[in-house]
Amino acid sequence: MDTPNIDRIAQMGVRFSSAYVQSPVCGASRMSFYTGRYVHSHGAAWNNFPLKVGEITLGDHMRDLGVQSWLVGKTHMKVDQKGMDRLGLSSQSVIGARVSECGFDVFERDDGLWAQGPDGFYDARRSPYNEYLKSKGYAGENPWHDYANSGVEDDNTVASGWFMKHADKPANIREEDSETPYMTGKAIEFMDKMKADGGEPWLCHLSYIKPHWPYIVPEPYHNMYGHNAVQPVIRDDSERDNPHPVYGAYMDNAIGKAFSRDEVREKVIPAYMGLIKQCDDQIGRLLDYMGKTGRIDDTMIVITSDHGDYLGDHWLGEKDLFHEQSVKVPMIIYDPCDAADQTRGTVCDALVESIDLVATFIETKGGTSPEHIVEGRSLLPFLHGAASDNWREFVVSEYDYSATPAAVKLGVAPRDARLFMIADKNWKFMHAEGGFRPMLFDLINDPQELTDLGADAAYANTISFMYQRLAQWTRRMAQRTTISDDEIIASRGKSARRGVLLGVYDEADAEDELTVKYRGKAQGRSVAPG
Amino acid sequence: MDTPNIDRIAQMGVRFSSAYVQSPVCGASRMSFYTGRYVHSHGAAWNNFPLKVGEITLGDHMRDLGVQSWLVGKTHMKVDQKGMDRLGLSSQSVIGARVSECGFDVFERDDGLWAQGPDGFYDARRSPYNEYLKSKGYAGENPWHDYANSGVEDDNTVASGWFMKHADKPANIREEDSETPYMTGKAIEFMDKMKADGGEPWLCHLSYIKPHWPYIVPEPYHNMYGHNAVQPVIRDDSERDNPHPVYGAYMDNAIGKAFSRDEVREKVIPAYMGLIKQCDDQIGRLLDYMGKTGRIDDTMIVITSDHGDYLGDHWLGEKDLFHEQSVKVPMIIYDPCDAADQTRGTVCDALVESIDLVATFIETKGGTSPEHIVEGRSLLPFLHGAASDNWREFVVSEYDYSATPAAVKLGVAPRDARLFMIADKNWKFMHAEGGFRPMLFDLINDPQELTDLGADAAYANTISFMYQRLAQWTRRMAQRTTISDDEIIASRGKSARRGVLLGVYDEADAEDELTVKYRGKAQGRSVAPG
Repeated sequence: MDTPNIDRIAQMGVRFSSAYVQSPVCGASRMSFYTGRYVHSHGAAWNNFPLKVGEITLGDHMRDLGVQSWLVGKTHMKVDQKGMDRLGLSSQSVIGARVSECGFDVFERDDGLWAQGPDGFYDARRSPYNEYLKSKGYAGENPWHDYANSGVEDDNTVASGWFMKHADKPANIREEDSETPYMTGKAIEFMDKMKADGGEPWLCHLSYIKPHWPYIVPEPYHNMYGHNAVQPVIRDDSERDNPHPVYGAYMDNAIGKAFSRDEVREKVIPAYMGLIKQCDDQIGRLLDYMGKTGRIDDTMIVITSDHGDYLGDHWLGEKDLFHEQSVKVPMIIYDPCDAADQTRGTVCDALVESIDLVATFIETKGGTSPEHIVEGRSLLPFLHGAASDNWREFVVSEYDYSATPAAVKLGVAPRDARLFMIADKNWKFMHAEGGFRPMLFDLINDPQELTDLGADAAYANTISFMYQRLAQWTRRMAQRTTISDDEIIASRGKSARRGVLLGVYDEADAEDELTVKYRGKAQGRSVAPG
Repeated sequence: MDTPNIDRIAQMGVRFSSAYVQSPVCGASRMSFYTGRYVHSHGAAWNNFPLKVGEITLGDHMRDLGVQSWLVGKTHMKVDQKGMDRLGLSSQSVIGARVSECGFDVFERDDGLWAQGPDGFYDARRSPYNEYLKSKGYAGENPWHDYANSGVEDDNTVASGWFMKHADKPANIREEDSETPYMTGKAIEFMDKMKADGGEPWLCHLSYIKPHWPYIVPEPYHNMYGHNAVQPVIRDDSERDNPHPVYGAYMDNAIGKAFSRDEVREKVIPAYMGLIKQCDDQIGRLLDYMGKTGRIDDTMIVITSDHGDYLGDHWLGEKDLFHEQSVKVPMIIYDPCDAADQTRGTVCDALVESIDLVATFIETKGGTSPEHIVEGRSLLPFLHGAASDNWREFVVSEYDYSATPAAVKLGVAPRDARLFMIADKNWKFMHAEGGFRPMLFDLINDPQELTDLGADAAYANTISFMYQRLAQWTRRMAQRTTISDDEIIASRGKSARRGVLLGVYDEADAEDELTVKYRGKAQGRSVAPG
């Protein structure tokens, strides 16, 4: 695909070609982006699993450095209402509102998931985007569905974008009113307002919903790509032969089955490409605005995603598992400072995790990433051409399928419906709780991940090695977040000077100062009353 | 030792003979008692490492069941001030005060650690006990030290209890004013007040500091036990021959060296026994009061400790490591209800952890322990004579020595100064982060734990098996605390009825209801504005 604007950022910055998300599902992945912590650490393991009140976020770290953190778009964050109630926090207060929005101040929160059914809307919030559409004359209760995410049937009725057969129709909306241009406009409004209000410096999380289901895009993007533009599918019949049970369950679900049909891929992928192209154009609009206003010279820009999409590869749709299509994401970072001049336009293949961004932003603003809280590592050395010593040797991703039909089908208890991925450049390993065998791919000899070696006795040593890495990782110190290493070191030996005198039999074992003044002698006679 | 009152409770209840603390150090152990969670989960891994604001405590669980939870004595809890500030919580508010006191309402907080040195008091709070002593006429700034924890020299000056040579002297205080009777009186006052104020039902954490350093006890307890009452020391010269480095560092510290001297043991242990005897007498006083007021008939009583004490065994003093002397604790539970009649006076040797108490208390009050938060398991089945299926196969304990001289001596970074114990009835295993070999004891053939098999190649399989258990445990789901398994199960399939329609190519793939009403057809023509 031709994406000249995203490419422009890549030319200005560094493209990280081995960037992985901490979980291939929106909510959990985002909570890792926003906390800089693994899912196993923050616990918000799936969509709408609330993020604990106590988790410290990017917004907290940035505010400590004098930077306001703002949201424009989607977070898929669900508030920990029980945690809020326990601490008497109201979402109407400034602090409570931030805790309710994973640390961001909200310029515009719109997750773009305005599905509606017999039980109501999937997202019970107000929809600023639906309000916008109504204000522009789009009719009905849910123009997000009826216009932005639907086409028109020949008889002029709504051709719902939920039906993938409609993916090749143009969405029945003016292009400028569709989701990506709308949210880009909000980002521009945001920057204008921050400038006018003295709200700089800021961090802006501009979070597009698209590309995402429903798969449909307005003119002219709907027919820019024909089905002949669709890349060959990456899958093999052998993958369906005795697959890992969890993988098998996902191939067997409605999404996997649908995306295994050529007609689905041939309809959806061109629309998906159109949605990407539209994003690229809107990023161009944003860059032009930032160029005109000078922001391009003092703003770090990061382009990334919360997960990928199988789109039929490996007999799967959407995300959820750990093939590269799902767990690997684009990550491009443009750093305007002089130190980054030497790396502009380069590609870095270091193993990067989404949690690295929090650390990167902290260090960009001159802070020191608190390693006892933030588990990611700053990418600044890579941006500034410095080798980063002792860089991580493997990346970790997790998936919690406890709320999905796969858990039911496999008869797995909610606490066992969890997957862990450990990957480096050579191997990708997946452990599944609940008594299943692992999965293993040889990324050198099988870069398309078509042959699962997890049941192959010849790879027992590799599997054992990956299990050791997983154990090393799960033992990590992830919860000692209330005291830093430096504070611990500074605390050493302090109790002696506050009078705790242990292992002392007599004066010969003790320091004089402590002995004389605090052990009574100097206080003279000691006569107990009564 | 003759402890008729503790024995009385054992006769009324069940004695758990294999009870372990989650960490053999006061603060970390207590935070596990108070949260029902492992140290690796709550992160307050050592004394004065603050407990995170977000951690849910026994007090929270009990309040949900209509039971107020009160503190009378020690917690060794340090407030997470940064976490409080982040959420705008004041310790002056009811909620903030509870968060500051690990979930308890405070009837009396007194940690009993009023050491004082050139940098001030070890504990910067006000000391209700010191205030009491002053009100009773005990002189000076710190009568806790000068009277309650010191004897008198021949020349009538203070014989500081910090010097273990004085352990055989009587503490220079009226027995009724010493720490254990004082706090017992507070517990009685507490029960009186709750009755008068309608504060029942309550949970009371009566937390004695003694037996504890400074090792000294008032008359008549100071000479109840002679040095001939001291049990033979459990140690062997071979333990000092090429020990595990962490064990070696602890043998080498001032405490280990002191308690390896016979004169120290012979002075300290009789005082320690006197302190236990005094506790037993005070428990008798409490039981008598509870008998007279009827509380004995409706109050569950638990006797336990936050850790043990080596007192010279294994060439060590105090606690910190995982020999039975340190990590195993007394645990006796008396349950007044009829269902417990069949088990009164029995001993249960199931592997019990301190975190089990939170779950036990919740279920005693008719609640269901929230397994997504509380990691311990209710002991009620054992109290009520029901076999508990699938009981745990091993116990876990941890120790964080990052703040101690051992970390300096061994050159271990703060995040690597961590130990994990896995034990069952047959084996005790210890993993040390930082590149050290493990330790291993054969509890069947070496119940005194004198021979460390951790470097013995003949035990590689056992060590590997224990590492697997450790890995299984560290992978556990400990942070998904904002949503229960039941809530997850109930959430399944809900998004479809809120309109999320995935993997649907055309109407043939979708349910009719969803298709007709929410996919546009029924809404008639769809004409986008201008």
